[in-house]
Amino acid sequence: MTTSSRAPIELRSDNAAGVAPQIMAALAAANEGSALAYGGDAVTAQLGDLVREVFDHPQAQVFPVVSGTAANSLALSALCPPWGSVLCHETAHIFTNEGGATSLFSGGAVMRGLSGADYKLHPANLQRAFDDTLWGDPHHSQPSVVSVTCPTDFGTVYSVDEVQALAAQARGRNLRMHLDGARLANALVALGAAPAALTCAAGVDAFSLGATKNGALSTDAIVCCDPLVADQLVFRLKRAGHVASKMRYQSAQLVAYLTDGLWLQLAQRANDAMSMLSAGLRELGAELLADPQANMLFARVGRQAATALADAGLLFYGMGDGVVRFVTSFQTTDDDIAEVLRRAAAVLG
Amino acid sequence: MTTSSRAPIELRSDNAAGVAPQIMAALAAANEGSALAYGGDAVTAQLGDLVREVFDHPQAQVFPVVSGTAANSLALSALCPPWGSVLCHETAHIFTNEGGATSLFSGGAVMRGLSGADYKLHPANLQRAFDDTLWGDPHHSQPSVVSVTCPTDFGTVYSVDEVQALAAQARGRNLRMHLDGARLANALVALGAAPAALTCAAGVDAFSLGATKNGALSTDAIVCCDPLVADQLVFRLKRAGHVASKMRYQSAQLVAYLTDGLWLQLAQRANDAMSMLSAGLRELGAELLADPQANMLFARVGRQAATALADAGLLFYGMGDGVVRFVTSFQTTDDDIAEVLRRAAAVLG
Amino acid sequence: MTTSSRAPIELRSDNAAGVAPQIMAALAAANEGSALAYGGDAVTAQLGDLVREVFDHPQAQVFPVVSGTAANSLALSALCPPWGSVLCHETAHIFTNEGGATSLFSGGAVMRGLSGADYKLHPANLQRAFDDTLWGDPHHSQPSVVSVTCPTDFGTVYSVDEVQALAAQARGRNLRMHLDGARLANALVALGAAPAALTCAAGVDAFSLGATKNGALSTDAIVCCDPLVADQLVFRLKRAGHVASKMRYQSAQLVAYLTDGLWLQLAQRANDAMSMLSAGLRELGAELLADPQANMLFARVGRQAATALADAGLLFYGMGDGVVRFVTSFQTTDDDIAEVLRRAAAVLG
Amino acid sequence: MTTSSRAPIELRSDNAAGVAPQIMAALAAANEGSALAYGGDAVTAQLGDLVREVFDHPQAQVFPVVSGTAANSLALSALCPPWGSVLCHETAHIFTNEGGATSLFSGGAVMRGLSGADYKLHPANLQRAFDDTLWGDPHHSQPSVVSVTCPTDFGTVYSVDEVQALAAQARGRNLRMHLDGARLANALVALGAAPAALTCAAGVDAFSLGATKNGALSTDAIVCCDPLVADQLVFRLKRAGHVASKMRYQSAQLVAYLTDGLWLQLAQRANDAMSMLSAGLRELGAELLADPQANMLFARVGRQAATALADAGLLFYGMGDGVVRFVTSFQTTDDDIAEVLRRAAAVLG
Repeated sequence: MTTSSRAPIELRSDNAAGVAPQIMAALAAANEGSALAYGGDAVTAQLGDLVREVFDHPQAQVFPVVSGTAANSLALSALCPPWGSVLCHETAHIFTNEGGATSLFSGGAVMRGLSGADYKLHPANLQRAFDDTLWGDPHHSQPSVVSVTCPTDFGTVYSVDEVQALAAQARGRNLRMHLDGARLANALVALGAAPAALTCAAGVDAFSLGATKNGALSTDAIVCCDPLVADQLVFRLKRAGHVASKMRYQSAQLVAYLTDGLWLQLAQRANDAMSMLSAGLRELGAELLADPQANMLFARVGRQAATALADAGLLFYGMGDGVVRFVTSFQTTDDDIAEVLRRAAAVLG
Repeated sequence: MTTSSRAPIELRSDNAAGVAPQIMAALAAANEGSALAYGGDAVTAQLGDLVREVFDHPQAQVFPVVSGTAANSLALSALCPPWGSVLCHETAHIFTNEGGATSLFSGGAVMRGLSGADYKLHPANLQRAFDDTLWGDPHHSQPSVVSVTCPTDFGTVYSVDEVQALAAQARGRNLRMHLDGARLANALVALGAAPAALTCAAGVDAFSLGATKNGALSTDAIVCCDPLVADQLVFRLKRAGHVASKMRYQSAQLVAYLTDGLWLQLAQRANDAMSMLSAGLRELGAELLADPQANMLFARVGRQAATALADAGLLFYGMGDGVVRFVTSFQTTDDDIAEVLRRAAAVLG
Repeated sequence: MTTSSRAPIELRSDNAAGVAPQIMAALAAANEGSALAYGGDAVTAQLGDLVREVFDHPQAQVFPVVSGTAANSLALSALCPPWGSVLCHETAHIFTNEGGATSLFSGGAVMRGLSGADYKLHPANLQRAFDDTLWGDPHHSQPSVVSVTCPTDFGTVYSVDEVQALAAQARGRNLRMHLDGARLANALVALGAAPAALTCAAGVDAFSLGATKNGALSTDAIVCCDPLVADQLVFRLKRAGHVASKMRYQSAQLVAYLTDGLWLQLAQRANDAMSMLSAGLRELGAELLADPQANMLFARVGRQAATALADAGLLFYGMGDGVVRFVTSFQTTDDDIAEVLRRAAAVLG
Repeated sequence: MTTSSRAPIELRSDNAAGVAPQIMAALAAANEGSALAYGGDAVTAQLGDLVREVFDHPQAQVFPVVSGTAANSLALSALCPPWGSVLCHETAHIFTNEGGATSLFSGGAVMRGLSGADYKLHPANLQRAFDDTLWGDPHHSQPSVVSVTCPTDFGTVYSVDEVQALAAQARGRNLRMHLDGARLANALVALGAAPAALTCAAGVDAFSLGATKNGALSTDAIVCCDPLVADQLVFRLKRAGHVASKMRYQSAQLVAYLTDGLWLQLAQRANDAMSMLSAGLRELGAELLADPQANMLFARVGRQAATALADAGLLFYGMGDGVVRFVTSFQTTDDDIAEVLRRAAAVLG
């Protein structure tokens, strides 16, 4: 065994990956001359046009922001009144990992986590929440938004039909529809779906367009399919400190990301690496918590094996109870996965 | 006259300038391998040490954020209770240009703009505000923080003694002291002061460390001299979506910025260009609203001359009533200024 | 002079007065049997009908609340978006005496105090604020509501025409119109105006209907002329803890108050007492800060005289700089005023 | 059977009951002369002393407010930072019935509903929540307060030992302890406990002292055992519009309530009526959801019987699935209960 076989292999998060060379190049290219601040520049204008084209929606508007939490919580604050509630899966990032951001930005709205198989909301889950609601009774926070995370935080993916059905169900009760697309490209590639099909055309009012986890340097974005939501966000973002003054450098990342399908190519690599990894782990008999459709996998290996895998130089998060999480990124190579599987075989085999 | 003499010359804002090559190089250098997200990386650790050294304060902590508005309002939200008020000059950016951000993040605190010569707060202004206050009476928002902007939004600079005196006066009534240093480097260079002298050592509890206006790509920062403020900010930033996941790229910009005095060199260039510009304009008989000590100048030239200057290719902001604002940046050359003065002479001469 | 001539005479505030006997009787009458909580009772239904009749507006809705601050700030939170500003006179109670309540309930909106003669907003003041605004620029809180206090906190009264003109001016820029009627009855009596004329018919979207200062025990109210505002308030009030469970006792006070003109009779007494007082003080040569049109008066008597008046048993508030405030209530008798003037003559004569 | 046997009998809520004659008398007595507003009156001072005596805590402070929601959410906002979470039972009123009030007043804190037998939190439930927490990780709202409702919303009662144990457990992790005592008197009577034993002496930092459901007209109260919490509430209440100007009338209700054990006598009546009712229903074979220790009972009678009971003139709330809720009050007589049982026998027997 060579030394390199002990070298750490990154599977902690796609956030731990670097920046795609095309995006670094775009930043360098944007660094020419001066440009009006706060989005009054040509690159930001170009980004708007590109988003409308990619998501096939002439009224779409895009707002670059520095984090997925900002993208989710600010969009939700424009969709949900202060006395409302956001319905989402009980494992959703917006419910479990954003430190109350939506309550802050909405002026006190609350989140309600629902159960659902495969870490997804299903129509029956949503219907039960509707049935439990005393509509119009001010003692109770009023369901106002349905939010789906796609891919979910456990690596499963809603189909286009599933998102459409939930959006229609939401609209039937006058709720708005939000999609947390922190890893949207990974979902699109997994489904082979057009960007519009899973978002604006499916009835989504606003969604988070992740880029940082998939090769960008410092930007995700909110995309609004509904221009009235965008009208609010102009103000909501500024007063939240989420308008970068040198916006052209944020926009340039996103323009490069969405141009010529770069985002989908990067996601394809991550998904492919995950396919290879999950197939290999299954061969080794590992129990997966869900079918990994995108670039994330949870396996129950037991505490002892988890420790052994870490000792073998795999970088990953332990989730407690002997469950490990592996995440691949656009930088994960087939060689990386082959080596991961070699080390895993020594532990699990 | 050559064509280039008609080329636009950028004086709108230091936000319109590009990114310093040293900072672009630092981003490229940071793009090696993978790194833990959310600040768990080595570059961010290095930034902390560097800030403690530069500001000569072993307990200082630094938080990169994407905008000056975020830096100011989040710091103020940690210094001011929801029922408090922030006392600042009536021309302060935090009062006039941040869309209510501090009220949002503090949970409803209010801002109180005070008058003061040279666009600065003076002890007598502050004393009058104290005297007008019904301390402890809950009908009235309770003064809780004094915030000074240095340089001011009109290009004047507080001396170290002035900041110290206001901080002492604030502390005498149990108020906290904040400094908006969106252009801190320009102030330090103008004063020839040590970074510590104008900040932690002067009694400032937390301040905004501007970088974007002075050569960075996408980051300013909050620096806390008081660790209890930092303890709050860990939570306040996350729930505001102001923790970049790939933090190493934010931190790398700031490390390059603060290393070997780069920030001061960049600011020196902007200030020198402004000195040359203001001297030239004065020779042309222009009336300046204040003595431009840093990199910003306001001149009352009349509406007709303002239009003519714009027609001559100068890019600047008109402030109404024939007042124009000129801002220089680290990219402004002596040749630029010479050309500006040539064109100005044709209009004002 | 008898001992009673030294007895304290209440001029501090109409809040210091007691409860009108008709209202105490209404409470006793309401205390029969059980009734559905939270407004589902018959007395509350009766109150709604009565308000629609008195204010001659079939869509008006009324919400009893426990304080004028609650009435103002909750109504304003339904009229002003979180990124908006409320324009009012710089002496308005909502600006100076409510501890930031509107910023709290609106999720961060700000107040902007404007100057204006006679402690009132005038069209020119409002126009100047409009002209200073960068409409649509998210750096700046967007003016969203005009609020007038009638009577003002200095005892002057807007005419019906003045309120109409300001409301039309507000509407011309898509702002909403609010009226703080903590002493609305005193204004109506002073003007001889119909309740509708100064409120819904004048273009007011929502107003505070004061009752506590004029004989009620524990309730003021919000009246919405615009039913969309009312739709919001159903939720905003509950989550602010401003829905009394035994609502019938709040509603009963207001029903008695508005029945058979009781509110106007009580206000007439307070205003008449003030007329007698102001006439007497003028005869004694006192300098009044404004013409006292309702039940409140400010006089500049000098520090020494202020002390002497207090020593003579007059209960009032000193406003600093030798200015005193006298407020009459429905309980102030002509004998009280005669005695006040006797004592004042000894001091000022 | 006489006609009166068809008369409605009130079991919907103790909120539907009237005002105790002693409290009406106290209001009449308070209506003498004038008094300083906003709590500067003698009755409010007397109330403070009385609360310190009754709860045997020399530092206790009391704040009358108009609703239980206000009492809970404002106290919680002073105990919980904006980034914190409040741990409570999943059936707690603060979690299910206050429309997000705590999120509003705290500036975005979140509630976390935990399971627990008998509708109560138990140490193991709390420990599990602690174990699930990533302490100090800003992705996650940080548990900051434990709140118990006593009696619970299902009529069970925490013992003194149970409250003490939870408070100690909370304190061990630096959490604060809150008690929702909307029906505190009913709990004290059920337990035979001293007021102090269940509150300040048990380690509770602040609690809601219910009065409205037990004979008052328009007031509950917050009692702070910790004076630092009280210091905040002075400001938090005013800016929430929760300081009644004619405070003496609120305080007078509470003084009468706490004097000579009136509150306990009223609660004893309600509890006794419930004992008689629950014993009778058990004899009739009704399935109770929990042992009714205070004045509230839930029985699963089936949908058909629920309808029949309503048709028989019983006023109560149906909870869905054939579950009915009966609440007794200080006005419920033994004759009422006898008649309820007669009618129930006809349906259930």
